[in-house]
Amino acid sequence: MKYEDIRQTAYETNMQLPKLGLVLFTFGNVSAVDRSQGVFAIKPSGVPYEDLTPEKMVIVDFDGKIVDGTLRPSSDTNTHAVLYKHWENIGGIVHTHSTYGTAWAQSQRDIPIFGTTHADHLTTDIPCAPPMDDAMIEGDYEYQTGFQIMNCFKEKGLSYKEVEMVLVGNHAPFTWGKTAQKAVYNSAVLETVAQMALLTEQINPQAPRLKDSLIRKHYERKHGPHSYYGQS
Amino acid sequence: MKYEDIRQTAYETNMQLPKLGLVLFTFGNVSAVDRSQGVFAIKPSGVPYEDLTPEKMVIVDFDGKIVDGTLRPSSDTNTHAVLYKHWENIGGIVHTHSTYGTAWAQSQRDIPIFGTTHADHLTTDIPCAPPMDDAMIEGDYEYQTGFQIMNCFKEKGLSYKEVEMVLVGNHAPFTWGKTAQKAVYNSAVLETVAQMALLTEQINPQAPRLKDSLIRKHYERKHGPHSYYGQS
Amino acid sequence: MKYEDIRQTAYETNMQLPKLGLVLFTFGNVSAVDRSQGVFAIKPSGVPYEDLTPEKMVIVDFDGKIVDGTLRPSSDTNTHAVLYKHWENIGGIVHTHSTYGTAWAQSQRDIPIFGTTHADHLTTDIPCAPPMDDAMIEGDYEYQTGFQIMNCFKEKGLSYKEVEMVLVGNHAPFTWGKTAQKAVYNSAVLETVAQMALLTEQINPQAPRLKDSLIRKHYERKHGPHSYYGQS
Amino acid sequence: MKYEDIRQTAYETNMQLPKLGLVLFTFGNVSAVDRSQGVFAIKPSGVPYEDLTPEKMVIVDFDGKIVDGTLRPSSDTNTHAVLYKHWENIGGIVHTHSTYGTAWAQSQRDIPIFGTTHADHLTTDIPCAPPMDDAMIEGDYEYQTGFQIMNCFKEKGLSYKEVEMVLVGNHAPFTWGKTAQKAVYNSAVLETVAQMALLTEQINPQAPRLKDSLIRKHYERKHGPHSYYGQS
Repeated sequence: MKYEDIRQTAYETNMQLPKLGLVLFTFGNVSAVDRSQGVFAIKPSGVPYEDLTPEKMVIVDFDGKIVDGTLRPSSDTNTHAVLYKHWENIGGIVHTHSTYGTAWAQSQRDIPIFGTTHADHLTTDIPCAPPMDDAMIEGDYEYQTGFQIMNCFKEKGLSYKEVEMVLVGNHAPFTWGKTAQKAVYNSAVLETVAQMALLTEQINPQAPRLKDSLIRKHYERKHGPHSYYGQS
Repeated sequence: MKYEDIRQTAYETNMQLPKLGLVLFTFGNVSAVDRSQGVFAIKPSGVPYEDLTPEKMVIVDFDGKIVDGTLRPSSDTNTHAVLYKHWENIGGIVHTHSTYGTAWAQSQRDIPIFGTTHADHLTTDIPCAPPMDDAMIEGDYEYQTGFQIMNCFKEKGLSYKEVEMVLVGNHAPFTWGKTAQKAVYNSAVLETVAQMALLTEQINPQAPRLKDSLIRKHYERKHGPHSYYGQS
Repeated sequence: MKYEDIRQTAYETNMQLPKLGLVLFTFGNVSAVDRSQGVFAIKPSGVPYEDLTPEKMVIVDFDGKIVDGTLRPSSDTNTHAVLYKHWENIGGIVHTHSTYGTAWAQSQRDIPIFGTTHADHLTTDIPCAPPMDDAMIEGDYEYQTGFQIMNCFKEKGLSYKEVEMVLVGNHAPFTWGKTAQKAVYNSAVLETVAQMALLTEQINPQAPRLKDSLIRKHYERKHGPHSYYGQS
Repeated sequence: MKYEDIRQTAYETNMQLPKLGLVLFTFGNVSAVDRSQGVFAIKPSGVPYEDLTPEKMVIVDFDGKIVDGTLRPSSDTNTHAVLYKHWENIGGIVHTHSTYGTAWAQSQRDIPIFGTTHADHLTTDIPCAPPMDDAMIEGDYEYQTGFQIMNCFKEKGLSYKEVEMVLVGNHAPFTWGKTAQKAVYNSAVLETVAQMALLTEQINPQAPRLKDSLIRKHYERKHGPHSYYGQS
């Protein structure tokens, strides 16, 4: 019973992806971590959402080794493992191929910050990590995907605690958060911000980025020391 | 029990936003006014729609002071308060981040009047208030948002009784009406008109604005002294 | 009980509009004709779909005069009346403000025939009648709308028996058919063809119109003397 | 009872098309083959999905001759027959007029491979067969459609075992697979990939095709001898 909590969490959060319209078939996965035991629970690979149960979630350690469970874990498991290992404050990770987020990733462009819907959640463009070089792809691909994400954050000077989402170039979005539930929330936010940004450029190809004073104001309404959004 | 009516109205109209596809998570709020008591009921901040009850609606006066209720009101409450205080004929206000309306707001463009769907509801472009200057943003932001909306109407020579909707540049739409129900209706109208206007420009970048005779005809079918739309 | 059948038909077909995603609120109406009695049943004006009943349908003659019913009929009633009076083979008429059809109407462009989905239903572009001149608009507007549609067909040499749909410039689509049910079907076909045509031009701005041999082949599969689509 | 299995399969897979949002009205059909008996079961022509039953599925041989059933089979039956006859490893075929797939077909363009969502399923662009010449159209049209598809694959050097989908120029998509269920899956994949590809070009008109190393990596994750996607 030692993994019951994270299995239940991983199950419930995985089931939200189809409800939020973020996945077709099995194109997505959520994991939930238990840092005291050094493991996370993740969706089994290729199993339809309607067939999932908490028991089917696979328990994996931070090196990607299966610790408990009878099914093969998500093919993206090693990306989750790398991020949990190096980013000590995250409690959940989500990967989807949501339509608009994936289109931006395929376009290899950061999503520009155009409005307060975006600034309510992060103060920078949503970064797009470049596609990996061939040596990384030929190696342990999913493991290297995790490093590609971390390198992108290093080069752009971003903190994973403030920017909880990324596009992997030519691939699709990854999001994370203090909890798996927050990571799912971030996936839905990314998708709607991605759609709004495309529409904004279509309506006005010269639309300017949001100005700094508004970025700071909106982010701090929700996240600053004097935040006044939500029930504290 | 003196606030029961507006709490019930605010509850019911807030619950329509997700049903009409106008909000993701908690990205929106409706308020309903009681002018005889000088207060309005508004959604509590950050509470998911599925957890709302009439009792959770917060009662606030026109200076933004909480009069009754245990929860913190919507972070946009002061914008509602300013509008109720200065625009004496409105009974309800809605704020959403609906997809197409928000994209136009981010584009900082008025929505051109291209057809009768638009003219059935107002005779002018849907105005987009410019983003505020930095001093206003650093001050009481939501309070100033209300003044930014009113200034926009003053400069464009618009009447809030005839034009019941606005885009706040870089932010998102606000709508209002004689009742909270009418304000919700206007939010849905704005969203569909915003989508049609973008599609119109995509189909024909030289599409002309609707001509004056048609604007007047359609508006007066629904709103003029000899209107013949609906059951009188 | 002499109008029971058309009231029932008008009720059922009106209720299909929201199910097919063709209307927001009350932005649409269907009528069904009884030619032996020289009347048609039409939706009452501005009544929400969820409040409709067969009894609420209004009975109107071909001059637009109310024959039976306690409610005011759709504001577009005179357009229906004109078309029934002059086009003797139609049994039902539908008017909607469906998103893509309306955007093409606002663009004042015919919808080009790009593929077999279109050719399965008609062999020409979907015509867009130009906006009326000011004298017609100031006069009996809805009555003149009917004549504007008929004039458009005359000038383009189209038959209403073969082309069962039209866009009214700056306004929105009208469709018809041998039955009200077929007219509703045509409204849904128009909307999907309108969306596909815009997407086609976005994917390939030089996309050619469908060639004549394919137009003839597909139309005759469904409608020619040797048609082999459906159960005869 | 000798056709019971394929009738049941054809029924169940046809019913998935409206659930997956791939068809309007009757614009689509699925067939399932029984190679031991040299026949396939296919949807009857023009029958609404809600009226289908397993018994209504029509049994046809590989020359398009009806073997069992009282209804007329889909008008596209001969295309299915040709493909079953010549491509010995397919167990099911699907034809739809899904929105984005059809728009690409009308644009007469192959769908470029822009990302891993595409590469998870095939390593090439999704081919678009050119419209047939007039002699083929005037002849046995649906029969020739099958040959047009096969010729397209021959000219481009594609294998139907690896590329399980095609666009027929000016018409719409066809997909297939080892089972009818897999063919339906492929139709949904094609539709989402088609939408993402258009969005990608809108976000970045210079978006490059996916590089070879990533194409190989993703395809082999799912399909290579060392695949590690799903439960083996």
